[in-house]
Order: sequence, then C-alpha cells, then structure tokens
Amino acid sequence: MAVGDSQFPVMHPVSGVQLGTACAGIKQNERDDLLVMKLSDKAVCAALFTQNAFCAAPVLIARKHLTTQPRWLLVNSGNANAGTGKQGVKDALQACHFLAEKEGASTEKVLPFSTGVIGENLPVAKIEKAIPAALVSLSAENWEAAANAIMTTDSRPKGASQQFELQGQKITITGISKGSGMIHPNMATMLAFIATDALIDQALLQQCLKKAVDLSFNCISVDGDTSTNDACVLAATGCVDQLEIKPETRELELFSDALTMICKRLAEEIIRDGEGATKLIRVFVENAASEAEAKQVAMVVAQSPLVKTAFFAADPNWGRILAAVGRAGVEQLNIDALTIWLNDVCIVRDGGRAADYSEAAGQAVMSQDEITIRIDLARGNCNQEVLSCDLSYDYVRINAEYRT
Amino acid sequence: MAVGDSQFPVMHPVSGVQLGTACAGIKQNERDDLLVMKLSDKAVCAALFTQNAFCAAPVLIARKHLTTQPRWLLVNSGNANAGTGKQGVKDALQACHFLAEKEGASTEKVLPFSTGVIGENLPVAKIEKAIPAALVSLSAENWEAAANAIMTTDSRPKGASQQFELQGQKITITGISKGSGMIHPNMATMLAFIATDALIDQALLQQCLKKAVDLSFNCISVDGDTSTNDACVLAATGCVDQLEIKPETRELELFSDALTMICKRLAEEIIRDGEGATKLIRVFVENAASEAEAKQVAMVVAQSPLVKTAFFAADPNWGRILAAVGRAGVEQLNIDALTIWLNDVCIVRDGGRAADYSEAAGQAVMSQDEITIRIDLARGNCNQEVLSCDLSYDYVRINAEYRT
Repeated sequence: MAVGDSQFPVMHPVSGVQLGTACAGIKQNERDDLLVMKLSDKAVCAALFTQNAFCAAPVLIARKHLTTQPRWLLVNSGNANAGTGKQGVKDALQACHFLAEKEGASTEKVLPFSTGVIGENLPVAKIEKAIPAALVSLSAENWEAAANAIMTTDSRPKGASQQFELQGQKITITGISKGSGMIHPNMATMLAFIATDALIDQALLQQCLKKAVDLSFNCISVDGDTSTNDACVLAATGCVDQLEIKPETRELELFSDALTMICKRLAEEIIRDGEGATKLIRVFVENAASEAEAKQVAMVVAQSPLVKTAFFAADPNWGRILAAVGRAGVEQLNIDALTIWLNDVCIVRDGGRAADYSEAAGQAVMSQDEITIRIDLARGNCNQEVLSCDLSYDYVRINAEYRT
Repeated sequence: MAVGDSQFPVMHPVSGVQLGTACAGIKQNERDDLLVMKLSDKAVCAALFTQNAFCAAPVLIARKHLTTQPRWLLVNSGNANAGTGKQGVKDALQACHFLAEKEGASTEKVLPFSTGVIGENLPVAKIEKAIPAALVSLSAENWEAAANAIMTTDSRPKGASQQFELQGQKITITGISKGSGMIHPNMATMLAFIATDALIDQALLQQCLKKAVDLSFNCISVDGDTSTNDACVLAATGCVDQLEIKPETRELELFSDALTMICKRLAEEIIRDGEGATKLIRVFVENAASEAEAKQVAMVVAQSPLVKTAFFAADPNWGRILAAVGRAGVEQLNIDALTIWLNDVCIVRDGGRAADYSEAAGQAVMSQDEITIRIDLARGNCNQEVLSCDLSYDYVRINAEYRT
C-alpha cells in the first residue's frame, strides 16, 4: 500500500543513457534485481553518498571510482553488501571487474550500488551470471524496468521525468529512486539515479545536485534511520551539445530548478511509499529565526512516533504536535506566539487550543490521505517543509518480518 | 503487558509523609485518580522538571511554589492540563487553592502535578469534590495506592523502597513513578515522587536528586518523545534528626548512592512497562572517548525504530545495530575497531559479522525477554548504559487508540 495515485509517469529517454535489467535471483527469483546503466563517452557524473560512518562496501568503491569518469552503473537489490568487512569490498570490486571485462574497459569505470539486507555477503557468482543478460537488454527505453529492478520493500516503482527548453534546445531530465524504510536524510538519501542530456561540467553538475538533494531527499523521513547505502547519482551525457550550461547564467538557474523539481518528486514518491504508510504528512514550519531552526522543528515533528501514530488513527491529537515542537530545542521559544494549522484548520493559538477550533473540523482534515501541518513560529522569516508519513501496524509488521 | 516480574515491592513508610487517594472520575470512574501527599513541617523538597519548552501549567506553578517550602503535593491522572493556555494556569492554581484552604494553608504551599491527555481543560470541579476524600484517607502506609492513582497507560504500579543505616541511624527512601509512553529523558522524565526521612538541606538535596536523575530517568527512552509534564520530586522530612547529612561526607555519598539506586529501579520499571513493550533492551556503550559520546551512541541505538522492531521479532538483525551506530555522529569512527555483543555472543568484529558468530547463537539470545547490546567503540574509557524496549504492534495500537 502507498499513499496516492500509483500511475508510473511517462519516462522520456535521455540520449547517451542505456539501461538493461536481469534477474540474478539474489533474494527472490520472481523479478529482475540487477540493473546496468551505460553512459556515453562524454558523460560526466555527480553523486552524493550516505553520511553514515558505517557506509557499505559499494559506497566506498563508488566514491573512489567517481573520480575517473565512470561509464557504467551496476546496481543490485536484495543484498546491501554492508557490514561485510574486507570481503564486501572484494566482492563489490569483483562484480565491477566482471562487467568491465565484458565491455573491454577498466574496473574503475564501473560504479557499484547495492540495496537490501545488511550483513550478508554479496552473491557475486549470481551477479556475474546475470550481467550478460542485462547487457543484452540495454536500451534507452528501459527506465521503468530499471525502477522496478532496484526495489526492495518498495511497493511500487518510483520515477520522474521532465523536458524543457533552454535557448531553443530541448533538455531532458529523467530519474528513478527506491526506498521505503531506513529513510532519514543525511546529505543523500536512498538510491536515486538521474540522467540528463545537458552539457555541463562535472563541478557545476555536482553543485546543482547538492542543492537539489538538500531541498528534496534531505527533507524526508520515514523512520529516522539513515541507511548505510544511500546514494544519489546524476549523469549528464552532454548529448545536447549546442549549448553548454555555464556558471552564473539564467540557463543554469533553469536547469537547477528543473533538477530540484525532479528530485522533489522522487523524494515525495519515497515517502508516499514509506513502509506501512497510509498518509502523507507535510510538515511546513514558517517564520522561523533561521532555516536550520525551521528544519529542526519540522524534523522533530515529522519523526515523533506519537504524532505519527495519531495520524495513523486519524486522531487530531494536536497536543502531541505541540509537545514535539516544545522539545525541538528552540531557544527561548515563545509558546504564546505559536500558531498551528492542520490544512486550513487552526488548531493552536495563544499557547492552547484555538478558540474557534472544533474537534469535528480537525477530524475532517485527519480523515484525508494527505495532510499539511503548518507551524508558524513567529520568530523570523525562514521556512522549511519536511515530508513524512504515519506509523502504522504495517510498519512494525514489515520490519519485524523483514528477514524471517 | 510488561517485561519481567510484576510483584510490587514492600514499601517502607517514611516518617513525616502521608498519602491519600480518591476517585475524582477525571477520565474513568473505576479507580482512584487523585493523590495528595502531605509533608511534615520540617520537610524540604528538591525537584526536576521537563525541559520541553511547552511545559504544562502545573509544571509552571510547581516550579514557582517549590521555592516556598511546600507542604502538599496534589497529583491527578487522566488529564495533563497541558496546552491549555492561561485557563490551564488558572485551573491548576484553583485546585491548589482549594486544597490549601481545606488545610488552612496558603496556595503556595501546594505543588500541583497532572498527567494524562494533552489539550483538554482540567476538570477542576471534579478534583475539588474529591479532595476531601483524599484527605480523609491520608496515611503513611498508602504508597501502593498512590502508585496506582498516578497511572495513565501504565499496566502496573511502580515503586521502590530501601532502608539503610548511617552512623547507626536507620534511613528510609521510598518512591513511586509512572510513565509508559512519551518517554524520553530531558533532565527529569515522567512523574516520580520520592521521600526520605533523612535530615539534609534543600540545596544539597537538589544536588543529590540531579545526580541520581542523570544516571536513571535521563538514561531511558521508550519512544523519543519528551513529555510536557515530566517531573521528579524528592522530599526529605528530616524526621531522623539525630544526624544531618552534610556536604563532602561519607554519609552524603552513601545517601546519594541509595537515592540513585531507587531512581534507577523506578526508571527501569518505566521501561519494563513501556507502551507495548515485550522486551527490555539494555544498550551499554563502552570505551567511548567521552561520556557524552557514549550516551549519544547508546541513545541512537536505543531509539532506532528498525532496531526496536527487530527485537520485537526476536531477529538478531545486527546490521541494523551497526547502521544505528554509524549514524550516531561520532567523528572519525573507526569501524574496524568496533565490537558488538548481544549478551555474551559477539556479533560484530573487524567491521563485519564476527567470524565465530552463528545465527543460532544470536537467535538464542534474541528469544529472551531481557537483552543487553554491548558496543565497544575502542576510543577511550567512558561508558554509558541506556534502557529501552522493543517496538511492537501494541505500541501502535495503544497510541492510535489513546483518545478514540
């Protein structure tokens, strides 16, 4: 189950990017679990990785290989190759090596990514066996199959795609993401692979990605647990080569905005498909003294198990929202100046329940699938939105049953 | 349901302390929900209150009245009188006033405490009506009835009591606590009322309480949500007046240790009765670079929903413990030096699964009711233990059904 419309969007192919999938049978045999992405020779890659100190073997290697103009992304689901020590690094390198050898390239040209259960060794033999089939299926049209191949506890594939014009040139940005649990932003969150045919240098591309990720993947939380394998990769193939996107131009601004939009959609898709989610919760904090303060308050509310269970029960228990704001560590918070709304219904004013609030009005909002908690701190002019979901029986069931 | 033995301990009366309870019918009519504690004239009180910026009306007043040598504690369950604005303050004062008038004292001599649902006005009339019955029942023997009267979602009363000798004088410390959800330490946690007949001045008593609370109530977490109403009060009646406990003495040390022990027992009782808890989890971090670092790592592991659901499922999913350690924000953490045990079973060594670890051995530990996660950071010599519980279907059920 996930919140909202489940229609997978139209995915515009990106010149210079081909995708191939295969079933390696890593955790199950019913669907493809291996993805190869092949980039054209001119492509440059930007990437952000998890800040978890315990990052997985593929993250260590991808970070290193990123500096040598990668040509292939090799992604598997069903096994995270995390907590696997030296053997994990050896295994990830071995998988890269096999793909590189098949394609007549060096191992450094392959970025490896893994997602799934932590602490079990990567079944490299299965991956090697499936790579040829994935290479055979390479096509620019395979984005939806790719989105399916990288899923773990996800209930549906996640994609976003957009085309827009810069100086008469049509630019495409298309991306996929996966993630449902162990979702809490720290620089990059979960797996996301995005490509564009724009021509832009690597340093500038990295800047654009950083900005977009801060405003999207870094503003969501399902359960507060930062994964060991989070990665977000953006490839620019440069196939639209009549126009190079340069620093401090209007074109850069438009490109950056479009990229941010794609990242926001992919991030929202992750929350809509949060483990056990029945509701999408937007926590919007406004008039904070700083952006950091706005985000801090929004995050504390978004992560509160008591707020999340109240939303699951469709219970307008605004006292729990208030209590979460109160423990968010805002210095000298003036409780009496605080105002809180559920969608358009004002629930808290002057330090207590709003005079005109009725339980019926609160209940009417809470029975909806998508709800915005708006919190006005009345301390400044900084705003921040964080996306979250409710905490349901199914979250417990999914995570209690994950390995067993 | 709660974890472990449910025998309520023998509660030694404390000279100079009387307790009376009554049913005010605040949320239900089946059991007493009002407690009056009366202290003898010489008694001094120390207290710690929630650090939640949104603290409840009774906390505001108790904090103020604490400075005027209080004689009565007035506690109700079923309504927290939090998020009730100016009306809440008026209501709490009115309840204090009624009790004080009955006893021929001034309002400032009463400390009010409330626990229960947030955001509904305190039914002062009900409380006023029940106060006379509570006063009639005042007795030094009523500690168990008092522990029952302050419960909300608690499944059982919580108490601890100890007698020991200082220079041939028998000293008693007896206390009760309540709390099951919205449990996350911040200076003081939940409601706890402790009394001793020792003779000790107020400033020294406050120091002893601060130290004891830091080592007990501030080291537990059920759900990471800090309550708006947390308070811990310690009264010393001075009835054992042949010996005054003075600064920098062996007697102070012994008294302080005994008090800490009582607080630890009361805190552990709260975790054993954590909402939906089926397992008690002790997270012990050792060889950290500082105490703050040890506590930070222990807290992140203790609060991780993924770790907690794995324990509910009795699944030795050590990857989730590892991932939680990795995101705890320890600077330059050397993953390869880390060692993790479940009770006596080593699960992680050299950055991955311990070579001699077997799933069967992990499973054997996980099927127990009480489990210690021991994490050796190999960075220094500071240790910290934090108590937590698992995350079960019942946690979601209890909190989704709380008001409805």
